[in-house]
Amino acid sequence: MDARVKPDLAAWAGRHLERVEQALSQWVVDDAPAGLGEAMRYAVLDGGKRLRPLLVMAASEAVGGNDEAALRAACSVELIHAYSLVHDDMPCMDNDVLRRGKPTVHVKFGQAQALLAGDALQALAFELLAPDDSSIPAATQAALCRLLARAAGHSGMAGGQAIDLASVGRPLDEARLMEMHRRKTGALLQGSVMMGAACGRTDERARTALAQYGSAVGLAFQVVDDILDVTADSATLGKTAGKDAAQQKPTYVSVLGLQRSRDYAGELLAQALGALDASGLRDTLALKSLARMVVDRQN
Amino acid sequence: MDARVKPDLAAWAGRHLERVEQALSQWVVDDAPAGLGEAMRYAVLDGGKRLRPLLVMAASEAVGGNDEAALRAACSVELIHAYSLVHDDMPCMDNDVLRRGKPTVHVKFGQAQALLAGDALQALAFELLAPDDSSIPAATQAALCRLLARAAGHSGMAGGQAIDLASVGRPLDEARLMEMHRRKTGALLQGSVMMGAACGRTDERARTALAQYGSAVGLAFQVVDDILDVTADSATLGKTAGKDAAQQKPTYVSVLGLQRSRDYAGELLAQALGALDASGLRDTLALKSLARMVVDRQN
Repeated sequence: MDARVKPDLAAWAGRHLERVEQALSQWVVDDAPAGLGEAMRYAVLDGGKRLRPLLVMAASEAVGGNDEAALRAACSVELIHAYSLVHDDMPCMDNDVLRRGKPTVHVKFGQAQALLAGDALQALAFELLAPDDSSIPAATQAALCRLLARAAGHSGMAGGQAIDLASVGRPLDEARLMEMHRRKTGALLQGSVMMGAACGRTDERARTALAQYGSAVGLAFQVVDDILDVTADSATLGKTAGKDAAQQKPTYVSVLGLQRSRDYAGELLAQALGALDASGLRDTLALKSLARMVVDRQN
Repeated sequence: MDARVKPDLAAWAGRHLERVEQALSQWVVDDAPAGLGEAMRYAVLDGGKRLRPLLVMAASEAVGGNDEAALRAACSVELIHAYSLVHDDMPCMDNDVLRRGKPTVHVKFGQAQALLAGDALQALAFELLAPDDSSIPAATQAALCRLLARAAGHSGMAGGQAIDLASVGRPLDEARLMEMHRRKTGALLQGSVMMGAACGRTDERARTALAQYGSAVGLAFQVVDDILDVTADSATLGKTAGKDAAQQKPTYVSVLGLQRSRDYAGELLAQALGALDASGLRDTLALKSLARMVVDRQN
């Protein structure tokens, strides 16, 4: 992107989202056997803000990354996000019946198919990152697999969900709550930024700054999520509002209160923007706009 | 291994299994949060025949593969196998309470933790394949991720499980039954062989032969599994015998009868051994012994 001609976020995001949606529709096959492909597509297509893919794309642009690698990485993080929602909605977890305004996958396809669809989406995420051609250097493929596996696994998302599971009905202090969210949602959001960065060349300074940006945006996302759970209605959210309180889940709002949660989201945004200013990267407008969007969003 | 001094399979397997067990115990961390690591270790350690890791090791030896890559690949296929058992045993799938003579993971840790442990094991499998050092060339890392993702996902194991799910109580013809097993168990067994091969250098002739070997061994494994489900008792199997018939699942025995199933297993063994003879590879003794073990096993 020419640094002198900056499109606004909506135009930038629209252009990239179109590519992501097309790629997801192509790569999430519908010829998987026995209804599995249908369940996978239902879980992934026509829904979601695609924040993680946009973070990948924006970070890749900031470092002049390989375009094909960025597109694959963008889709792969969305597949991991989608699979986690499918499993998280199941009766043995959150038992939710509504997601993005539609019946959840297990409601529509049954629990067994939902379990398999989630499993297959996780595998597909890694398959996308390692195409059998020379469009993406092997070192980039390996780095992307490494970053995604760490973000998704026990030290990232899955570990955070285990803490979440163990914390229902128990008071968590702020440090423990932050630890949970750093893993549960933060790891994949930060991972998205770092995967975008891995599509190009970065120096240590830029990598550190992008890691700080990703961490701040990841936490801000969750703080705002907790605020919206209290202040928005189900129709706006596209999912059941007030769920956390009903399930006695600890949230930033329950730990900090509403006003301090809002202040904290603002501080995290300032941290994210400050990190980019210190990154030495020239083209950080999209990353900055995405950070603002995360904090200002209404759903 | 010196081709003139061939150890028997037990000694060869014992030596490699010790390394695999040690590596699994090291890599399947127990510091994952909130009991997740405990559930992951319970699912993986102290159990299983470790057939898939041995296939990786044997194939890697046959092609003179990178030893560190082979060990990581061996552990990664076992993690995928272990996660699939955890999810497969859950109430919404096979609802089994006994595995390797022990309570299944969801019985011991609850369904939510079992779901997460399976998810985290899948992520860890890919994490193992992409270490952040130069011990394994990036091209090998990427090839291993590619092979594992394809073997585990919708076109492999998860796809086979979807066919399995859709086939309960319905008659399947032999072709459809074979298609199910090619994916459900065959893909990961063949994938193990091809991942071992990817740890070294192979020509087209060797790769084709190893793919044929892996396919035949994969099918033979399932045919023998179906035979043992009818002929062995639960104590010998370490899992519930007669389960397939009780659940009206189509099996080779129900489709072909017991004697023709035994004949078929013998034919597949001959195919596997013949493929190795045509491979141009010198050191195929361990692969041959493993194929015989698959067909002759009692549990």
